Amino acid sequence: MAGGVGSRFWPLSTPERPKQFIDIIGRGKTMLQQTYERFEGLFPLENIWIVTVKQYASIVAEQLPQVSADRVLLEPCQRNTAPCIAYACWRIKMIDAKANVVVTPCDHSVMDINEFQRIIRSCLKFTNGTDAAVTIGIKPTRPETGYGYIEADLTSSSPRNKEIFRIDSFREKPDVATAKRYVSHKNYFWNAGIFIWSVSTIVNAFRVYSPQIGKVFESLAKYYGTPYEQEQIDLHYPKCESISVDYAIMEKVEESFVCPADFGWADIGSWHSLLTESKRDLYGNCSVGKGIRLYDTRDCVIHAPNEEKVVVQGLDGFVVAHNGNTLLICKLEDDQQVKQLSAIE
Amino acid sequence: MAGGVGSRFWPLSTPERPKQFIDIIGRGKTMLQQTYERFEGLFPLENIWIVTVKQYASIVAEQLPQVSADRVLLEPCQRNTAPCIAYACWRIKMIDAKANVVVTPCDHSVMDINEFQRIIRSCLKFTNGTDAAVTIGIKPTRPETGYGYIEADLTSSSPRNKEIFRIDSFREKPDVATAKRYVSHKNYFWNAGIFIWSVSTIVNAFRVYSPQIGKVFESLAKYYGTPYEQEQIDLHYPKCESISVDYAIMEKVEESFVCPADFGWADIGSWHSLLTESKRDLYGNCSVGKGIRLYDTRDCVIHAPNEEKVVVQGLDGFVVAHNGNTLLICKLEDDQQVKQLSAIE
Repeated sequence: MAGGVGSRFWPLSTPERPKQFIDIIGRGKTMLQQTYERFEGLFPLENIWIVTVKQYASIVAEQLPQVSADRVLLEPCQRNTAPCIAYACWRIKMIDAKANVVVTPCDHSVMDINEFQRIIRSCLKFTNGTDAAVTIGIKPTRPETGYGYIEADLTSSSPRNKEIFRIDSFREKPDVATAKRYVSHKNYFWNAGIFIWSVSTIVNAFRVYSPQIGKVFESLAKYYGTPYEQEQIDLHYPKCESISVDYAIMEKVEESFVCPADFGWADIGSWHSLLTESKRDLYGNCSVGKGIRLYDTRDCVIHAPNEEKVVVQGLDGFVVAHNGNTLLICKLEDDQQVKQLSAIE
Repeated sequence: MAGGVGSRFWPLSTPERPKQFIDIIGRGKTMLQQTYERFEGLFPLENIWIVTVKQYASIVAEQLPQVSADRVLLEPCQRNTAPCIAYACWRIKMIDAKANVVVTPCDHSVMDINEFQRIIRSCLKFTNGTDAAVTIGIKPTRPETGYGYIEADLTSSSPRNKEIFRIDSFREKPDVATAKRYVSHKNYFWNAGIFIWSVSTIVNAFRVYSPQIGKVFESLAKYYGTPYEQEQIDLHYPKCESISVDYAIMEKVEESFVCPADFGWADIGSWHSLLTESKRDLYGNCSVGKGIRLYDTRDCVIHAPNEEKVVVQGLDGFVVAHNGNTLLICKLEDDQQVKQLSAIE
C-alpha cells in the first residue's frame, strides 16, 4: 500500500511526494524501496503488487523500475485501506485463486529483517489453505498513544503454530492511562497494519462483512487484466466506502489471529515518531542536516538537510522542518497539529 | 559611517553584506540609501563623505553610484567610531578648514525627515564658527535598555539657541530600573550617535583628548588627496586605538551640548529593535515575508522574505530569520545572543 499522503510529516512529506517516497530516516533508500527489499528471499519479487494513487504512478516507476507496470494498481482517489486491499486481492485472485497474501504499509521501518522474514514465513505457512486472517502485533516497548492495539488471548495459541493467538479485540489509539494499562498487561500489541491471509479468505470476508466494497470489485472481474481495467476502476472505485480494513473486516472475521513480533518495527508516521525512533543527542534532540547547531534546546526534531547553517537556541519540544521553500516550526506535543497546519493555503 | 558589521541582525545581516546595505524594514531602499537621501536639501549632496571598511567599497559604489569614489574613505580595518570620524574630519579640513560637519551612522531609521532637517539645520547654525560640539538626543518613548543616554542640564539652554542644552553626562546602556528613572526625569535623552561640529573643533578635540589618534591623522596630512593616501592609511590606521567617539571625545570636551529631538528615530540594530519599531499584528508579531502564517504565536519576529511558505505555531518571544541557506531560531530576550550565535563556525 503506497497511496498515503503523510500529512503529519509536512513539509518534508508533501502531497506531491509523500513520506513513503522519501528517505525519511536517512538510510539511503526511500521507505517504499526499503519495504520492497524487506521481502527479498521470501518469495519471487515479481509477485509484489503495489497499490497507489494515480498521481504517484510515476514516482513508483522511478523508485522501483524493476516492478512491471502491470503490477502497479492505481486508485483514482484515496478510500482508506479496505478498498485498496480488496482491489489488490480480487486482482491477485484472478491470477492465482490459492494465493497467500501479505499486506503491508510501505511507510514503516523494520530494523531486524531476518526476524521479520521469519515471522512472515511462519504466518504464511499458518494461513495457507485455512480461513485464518493474521495481523502482526508488535510487542510494545512504551505506552504509545499513537498506535492502535490488539488484545490477544494468550491462552489460545493455535495447535498449528505456538506463536499465533486468537484476537480478543482491536483497540483504538488509547489515552496515556489506557496505554499504560495495555503495556502492563502483556497481552496487548501494537497493530502494525501488516496482514497475512489467503485471497480466498479475504475475498469471502469482503463479500460477507463489507458487501458494498465486495460488489464493486466482483462486478469488475471481467475487466481485470484487460485494457479497460483502469477506465472501469476510475469509474467505480470512487463509489467504495472509505474505511480501514481493520474496521471493515478484521474486527468482524471469526478466524482472526495475531502473531506477536519483535523485529524493531516503527511506524515513522509523524515528526514525533522520528524523535521516538531515531538517534537522539544528549538533550533528546534528533537532527537531520549538516550545519545544525543547537543551544539550550531539548527534545526537538530539526530536519533541514538542504540548509548550510541552522542555529537554534532556546526551543523545547518543537519540530523545525525546512523543505524546498517551506519552513515549519511547531510544537511536537500534538501530531495532528502538523496535519492541520499542512492544510493551510 | 558605513563600516559596521551588524552581527545582531544575523543571518539577514552578514559580514559580506551587513545591515546598512539591506532594506531591513521594507521601505524599498537600503539603510545607506535612506541615510543619504535624508540630507537632500540641507546642503549639496556632493559634500557627503562615506567612511566604510575596504571590503564594502563595491557595495557602497553599487548602492550610491552618484557618490564620487574620492568621497568614499576606506578603513583597512574596524576601529570603532573615533578613528573613523577623525579620518573624515582631517580629510575634510584639508579641503575646507571652516567646514561644519554632521556625523551620522547609516543604520538608523528616521520617520519625520522635515523635522530631522530642521533640527540639523538648527544645530549647524549653532556650531558654525564656535567650539561647540552637539549631540542629537532623542526624547525617549520607553525605558529602552539598548541605548546610551545623555543627561542634559535643561536650565542651561544657550542664549543663541533655546533648544540646545549643556550636557551633564553621557550614560552607558542602563538596566531596566535605571532606564525607568531616566525616562521619568525628562532630562535624559537617547544618544543617537549623530554629532554636529566644525572640523576645527573636532580636530582640536582629538589633539587634546585623544592625541594618539590625532597624531596618526595629523602625520598623514601630506598624503591626503594624493595617490599615496590609501597605502598610508592602510599602514597607519590599524595603529589607532579602537574606541568610540563618545568615550574618546564627547565625554571630555568642555563645550558639549545636546539638542533634544523627536523625529521618529530608531536604531534598527537588532531583531529585537525591529519588533519595537515595526508594525506588529494583534499578537505583537512582526512578519516580513509573503507566505507567513502564525498560530498561537506572540511577540515574535519572523523574517523570511524569500520563503514561499512559513508556518509557525506555539512560539513566544522568538526571532525566526531565514536568509540564503541559513536559518536562525533564537529567543529575542537577549540581543547579544544573536551576535554570539552568528559567530559560530
